[in-house]
Amino acid sequence: MRAVVMYGAGDVRVEERPAPRIRRPTDAIVRVVLSSVCGSDLWPYATMPATGQGKPMGHEFLGVVEEVGSRAAGLKAGDLVVTPFSFSDNTCDFCRKDLHTSCRSGGLYGLDGIDGGQGEVVRVPLAGGTLVKLPVGEDSPLLPSLLTLSDVLTTGYHGAVTAHIAPGDSVTVIGDGAVGLCAVIAAERLGAERIVLMGRHASRTDLGLAFGATDVVTERGEEAVARIRELTGGDGTDKVIEAVGSRQALETALDVVTDGGVVSRLGVPRYEEGPVGRAIVLRNITLTGGASPARAYIERLMPDILDGKIEPGRVFDRTTSLDEVPDGYRAMSVREALKILVRL
Amino acid sequence: MRAVVMYGAGDVRVEERPAPRIRRPTDAIVRVVLSSVCGSDLWPYATMPATGQGKPMGHEFLGVVEEVGSRAAGLKAGDLVVTPFSFSDNTCDFCRKDLHTSCRSGGLYGLDGIDGGQGEVVRVPLAGGTLVKLPVGEDSPLLPSLLTLSDVLTTGYHGAVTAHIAPGDSVTVIGDGAVGLCAVIAAERLGAERIVLMGRHASRTDLGLAFGATDVVTERGEEAVARIRELTGGDGTDKVIEAVGSRQALETALDVVTDGGVVSRLGVPRYEEGPVGRAIVLRNITLTGGASPARAYIERLMPDILDGKIEPGRVFDRTTSLDEVPDGYRAMSVREALKILVRL
Repeated sequence: MRAVVMYGAGDVRVEERPAPRIRRPTDAIVRVVLSSVCGSDLWPYATMPATGQGKPMGHEFLGVVEEVGSRAAGLKAGDLVVTPFSFSDNTCDFCRKDLHTSCRSGGLYGLDGIDGGQGEVVRVPLAGGTLVKLPVGEDSPLLPSLLTLSDVLTTGYHGAVTAHIAPGDSVTVIGDGAVGLCAVIAAERLGAERIVLMGRHASRTDLGLAFGATDVVTERGEEAVARIRELTGGDGTDKVIEAVGSRQALETALDVVTDGGVVSRLGVPRYEEGPVGRAIVLRNITLTGGASPARAYIERLMPDILDGKIEPGRVFDRTTSLDEVPDGYRAMSVREALKILVRL
Repeated sequence: MRAVVMYGAGDVRVEERPAPRIRRPTDAIVRVVLSSVCGSDLWPYATMPATGQGKPMGHEFLGVVEEVGSRAAGLKAGDLVVTPFSFSDNTCDFCRKDLHTSCRSGGLYGLDGIDGGQGEVVRVPLAGGTLVKLPVGEDSPLLPSLLTLSDVLTTGYHGAVTAHIAPGDSVTVIGDGAVGLCAVIAAERLGAERIVLMGRHASRTDLGLAFGATDVVTERGEEAVARIRELTGGDGTDKVIEAVGSRQALETALDVVTDGGVVSRLGVPRYEEGPVGRAIVLRNITLTGGASPARAYIERLMPDILDGKIEPGRVFDRTTSLDEVPDGYRAMSVREALKILVRL
């Protein structure tokens, strides 16, 4: 089977790999129907040291179950399923607390002999706990939106949930990438009254406005802070969702949140130290968020997609074949494309 | 009137100061009955550059109202009152959100011409919003416990509230100072099942055990982390209250909290940068806490003191006169005394 493998920064290849087969009774083999490239894939694309080994890429996919192990409960060949970006047993104490990213048996695609999701076929570990059935056909026009349950929608939603967004809140979303845009959807869904989207790509911020943003701020850094404080009578917004991952974005977040407010971070920070001293303690700022337990949110959000209430699939602005994925990485990395949908 | 003034590190004096008088209609003049020295006073005591000016000290006191301005609502001469450590109007939008430390008109004692609380008489600004009447006499044996409503009890409680301590939780309290010990009281009051107190002064940790701690860890740093993980089956505790303010204490807090848990910081950090990168995002750790809106908690906690359910006044292990306060600073700074009660 063919799959995407990264050999270093800027070096993404599509190559023939051994067809996966059931190794453990909890495995399932899934034929991928749709996959996508994640903003987080762009970080190794920019920085990964060259390696002869290569790393299978991709953690967002939906597809058809081809074969199940004897203990992949609730699944059968022919099921159309979506995966959260990490696999988990859905039964351990962390999973029961809706923290599937800390599952005691869980893990990530593309590591330790597990296939990546940008490929024709994937062996999914802990399949019964991980995969969620989709009540539509393989030809449904809703599939791109359902694919966002893998990561970007459930990640944006995690930001809104951990920020405790409540009806009437004002919210700043930093970042007009797919996660930021999905955070707008989530903030709107939880009743935020004012949603200020920070971004400078008109096509993306326009989509943010369609998703429910009330204001767009194109400035960065201190100018953005001044603009948002001006928009909010000097106080900043009640909540901030930081969907960039840079140190500057964190600083901006802390500067535009109101006293007693919450900053929720999504995605993996590209810094180790942050300004969490005197100022934020005196102002009672809470810093929260993290890697989304996507599995916990899939059933909660799917009905809104099936009902057509939300259309997160609009974040995909380019569709490619598997062979075109390397060019998709390039296009996303230079901001030529917002997010690549891969149709297999 | 006589009051405590600090002129630099280690240089605390008791001196004659002008008797305060009503300046604004919202002022009240309070004759101090009990005052105390706060752990936060020890930071300038260790580091304040020498100054000819001097800074009036103290922000924890209770006393008798001597005179009120025309708009000090609800107060009259003769009332016995306690103050939160900051003054606030109790009516602005931040106060209504129980964030009195961000009051739009509020401020701190000892700054901008406002008296400190370690003195015979204090002009209290925004007195109607700030002071809370005590339903006991000036000779009540409960006064030391009621004095802790000014700061240490309400600060410890803020840690427990912002950490969202719920029945059954496991909690680590870092620091066996008065705030840490009061955090133990608060954690126990909110139903924590296991309370691990980190401290190395037996007289203090013994008091912590009396207040409800279930375990004492005397180690520091990596050894403390190993010990607490051992006590908790490897996972750490659900919540951590960090009542020290050092960078090391923050690092320990982040290392002993379980995935998805909450670290609440109390007191003003003596560092600007903290380790808030990749690890805590992947583990979904929330960092919260801050300066306590003490005013918001006074009425909530006072009944437990009046009923004898909690005895936070036990944190005072030495009583001095006003003249002896400079020696009290010394005794606290060398850990000879836990907390000084000043009887005027």
